[in-house]
Amino acid sequence: MTRIVMKFGGTSVGDLDRIRNVAARVKREVEAGNEVAVVVSAMAGATNQLVKWCQELSPLHDAREYDTVVATGEQVTIGLLAIALQAAGIDARSWQGWQIPIRTDDAHGKARVEAIEGAELIRRMQSGQVPVVAGFQGIGPDNRVTTLGRGGSDLSAVALAAAVRAERCDIYTDVDGVYTTDPRIVPRARKLERISYEEMLELASVGAKVLQTRSVELAMKQRVRVQVLSSFEDRPGSLVVDEDEIVEQPLVSGIAYSRDDAKVTLRHVPDRPGVAANVFGALSKAHVNVDMIVQNVGADGLTDMTFTVGKADLARAREVLETARPEVGFEALLADPEVAKISVVGIGMRTHAGVASTMFRALSEKGINIQVISTSEIKVSVLVAADYTELAVRALHTAYGLDGPAE
Amino acid sequence: MTRIVMKFGGTSVGDLDRIRNVAARVKREVEAGNEVAVVVSAMAGATNQLVKWCQELSPLHDAREYDTVVATGEQVTIGLLAIALQAAGIDARSWQGWQIPIRTDDAHGKARVEAIEGAELIRRMQSGQVPVVAGFQGIGPDNRVTTLGRGGSDLSAVALAAAVRAERCDIYTDVDGVYTTDPRIVPRARKLERISYEEMLELASVGAKVLQTRSVELAMKQRVRVQVLSSFEDRPGSLVVDEDEIVEQPLVSGIAYSRDDAKVTLRHVPDRPGVAANVFGALSKAHVNVDMIVQNVGADGLTDMTFTVGKADLARAREVLETARPEVGFEALLADPEVAKISVVGIGMRTHAGVASTMFRALSEKGINIQVISTSEIKVSVLVAADYTELAVRALHTAYGLDGPAE
Repeated sequence: MTRIVMKFGGTSVGDLDRIRNVAARVKREVEAGNEVAVVVSAMAGATNQLVKWCQELSPLHDAREYDTVVATGEQVTIGLLAIALQAAGIDARSWQGWQIPIRTDDAHGKARVEAIEGAELIRRMQSGQVPVVAGFQGIGPDNRVTTLGRGGSDLSAVALAAAVRAERCDIYTDVDGVYTTDPRIVPRARKLERISYEEMLELASVGAKVLQTRSVELAMKQRVRVQVLSSFEDRPGSLVVDEDEIVEQPLVSGIAYSRDDAKVTLRHVPDRPGVAANVFGALSKAHVNVDMIVQNVGADGLTDMTFTVGKADLARAREVLETARPEVGFEALLADPEVAKISVVGIGMRTHAGVASTMFRALSEKGINIQVISTSEIKVSVLVAADYTELAVRALHTAYGLDGPAE
Repeated sequence: MTRIVMKFGGTSVGDLDRIRNVAARVKREVEAGNEVAVVVSAMAGATNQLVKWCQELSPLHDAREYDTVVATGEQVTIGLLAIALQAAGIDARSWQGWQIPIRTDDAHGKARVEAIEGAELIRRMQSGQVPVVAGFQGIGPDNRVTTLGRGGSDLSAVALAAAVRAERCDIYTDVDGVYTTDPRIVPRARKLERISYEEMLELASVGAKVLQTRSVELAMKQRVRVQVLSSFEDRPGSLVVDEDEIVEQPLVSGIAYSRDDAKVTLRHVPDRPGVAANVFGALSKAHVNVDMIVQNVGADGLTDMTFTVGKADLARAREVLETARPEVGFEALLADPEVAKISVVGIGMRTHAGVASTMFRALSEKGINIQVISTSEIKVSVLVAADYTELAVRALHTAYGLDGPAE
C-alpha cells in the first residue's frame, strides 16, 4: 500500500476527453492498491482568460479580488474530475483550498503555504476515497481565497504530499521527465532516472522549465520524493530525490541554458572601496535581481564592472544606474541583451576537480568566447553570445559524456 | 439614508462593458447617499457551459460536484464587479456564499436558504463599503457549496435584503417592469407601478417570466419590497409590495398566458367514488403535477374526466395512466398538447363579483371555446385552443379596461 499524490497540469485537463484520460490514470493507481490524492490545475487557457478580464477592468486591480476570480479555474476542474472519477466507478470528492483548509499568508496573488490540515484527507484516503484538490489556491488569514502565483499547482501538490505523508508526488506534465539537456537542441539528450533536489533546483532556475523552482525548494525542505512524468505516455519519468538515494552520482547531470538575462557593463568605474556597494545597493533597492558579477583588475585607478540582470529588468536597471551615476561615477553604460547563460550542473563536482576546465576547453575548441563566469558548489555557468547557445550546449553535452545512443 | 439590495442578472453582467455599466449604476446609488449591497448572477452563457460539461461527463453526476462547478460562474462576476467598482472609486469587496455565510439545507442543486448572517455586511455597508455578493449559491451543513436552482439569484437577493433589513430589493433585468400582459402580444399593455405579492405570484406562476416564483414567495413571507426594473434604461420599474401599500386596487391587474400545459381526457370512466383518487394518486406518485381538473356529470354510470399536466410530463402521464388502466377502467385516453391557459389575475376579485362572467362573455364574443375553467381567490383561468392565445389575451385586456393609450 503506497500513498501517492498525483498532480495534473492545465494541458492534461484541457478538455473533457483529457479529464476522462486523467480519471483512467487515477483509477489504475487506485486499482493497483494505492491510496491516491489528486491535485489539478485549471483547464489550459482558462486562467489566462480570467487574468485578462481582471487586467482589462483595472491594471491596478485589488489582488484579493483577482484571487477570487482566478481561483475559479481550479474549482471547475476539481468538480469535473470528481464527476469523471465517479463515472469510472471510483469514490472521489472535490476539495477547495478553504475546505481542507490549505492555510497561506496574506500575500494575495503569490501567497506562501503555511499549513495544510492533512488528517481528514488521510482518513478518507484510508477509507478508499480519492480527494481531488484544487491546486494554486488556499485561504488567507482574512478568510479570503488566495493564490500561489503562476505554476503554483506544483507547489500545492508537493505541500499536500508532505501534509498527507505521501511516499511520492507524481507531477504529470507534457514532457516525460527531466533530461540531461533540452532534447530540442540535443536529440541524443538522455532522460535522467534520478536527480537530486539540489541539481533539479539549479536546472529549474537556469531554464529547464519542468518544475516550478519554489516547489523543488519545498520538496527538498520537506523531503518529498517527486516524480516528473508524461500524462500522455505510459512509462516511468524522472525521480527527484535526496542525493543519498542516488547510488552512482555522475560528475555532471545536465546542461542548462537561459536566454532570459542581459549583460550590463559599467566602463571606467573608480577602483575604490564602496563603489560596488553603491551600484548593487541601488539595484537591490529597485528590486532588480543581479546574477553573475565580474570586476576586472583596474589600471589608472579605474576598472570595468560587468553583471547580468533579467531582460525584463534591463530598462529599470539602466534608469536606476543613470540616477546613481553621480555617486558611482562610471564613464559609460553598455547593455547587451543578446547573451545566453550556459550552465553545467552536477553534485559530483563537490568531490571532483576539473569540471570547469573541461568546460572552458570544450567551448574554446568550438571558438566560443566566454564573457562572464560564475560558479557555485554544484554548478559552473558561463555567459556567451546568444547566437552560440545551441553550439555550446551540444559541445558540453558531448564533452561530459552525456550523449545517449544515436537515434 | 436608504438601504437597498441591487440584483443584476446574467445579461446585465454579460461582458466587461456591461459590468462597467453595472458599476456606474451602483455608484449612482451610493453617491445618492444610499447604503448598497449588490447580488450578481454569472455572465450570460457561463452557467450553461458549466452545466453542459457536467452532463457530458455523466448524466447522473453527483449534485455536490455539480454545485462546486456551476457556482464558479458567480464567483467570477463578484470579483470582476468588485474590481470595476474600485476602479470607479467605490469601496467594494466580494463575498462568496460560504464567506458570509449564506446557510442552506443539503438539497444540492436546488437548496433552500435557511439563514444569512447579516451583521457583518450591515456593519460594512454602514461604513460605506459595498458588499458584492454571489447569487445562486450558499453553503450546506456538510461545509460544501450548494446552489439554489435556476433563477436562484433572485432568491439570493430577496433573502439578503431580508437579512440586512433593506428597505428595497431592486431586481435589474432585461424588461423594465411588470406589465398588465405580454407587450409582444398587446402593444397597449401598461407597466404596473405597483402590484401585490399575491398577484405577482399568480402572474409569475402562469407564465409572466419576470421574477422567479420562489423569490416572490420569500419576499411575501419576509415582507421585502421588490422593484423590477431595466438594467439598460433609466426609469423606475414596478414595485412588488404588500397589498396594503396599494391604494387603488384595480379589479384585474393583469392577463397571463402559458402554453406549457397539455390537456388529458379520460373517456368513459366509471362514475363511482375512488376513481379520481386512483387517477390522481398514480400521477402524484410518479411526480406528475396536475393543474386544472374538470369532471362532467355522468350518464349510464360513466363520465369523462379532463385535466392538464405540464407538456414535459405528458409522455410519463400517459404511461402511468395506461399502467393504471385496469384499476381505473377508462375507455380511451385523449391527449391534446395544443392548448393555452389564459388567466385573469387581480386582488380586487376577492370583493367584487362578475369578473368571471366578463371573461366568459369577452371570449364568447370572439368565438373562442372554453375547454376547462379553474378559479382561485384572485385568479380565473381557462383553457382554450392554442391558436386562440393572442386573440384571447387581447380580448380580455380590452374587456377589463387595461389598455393604455394607443401608441
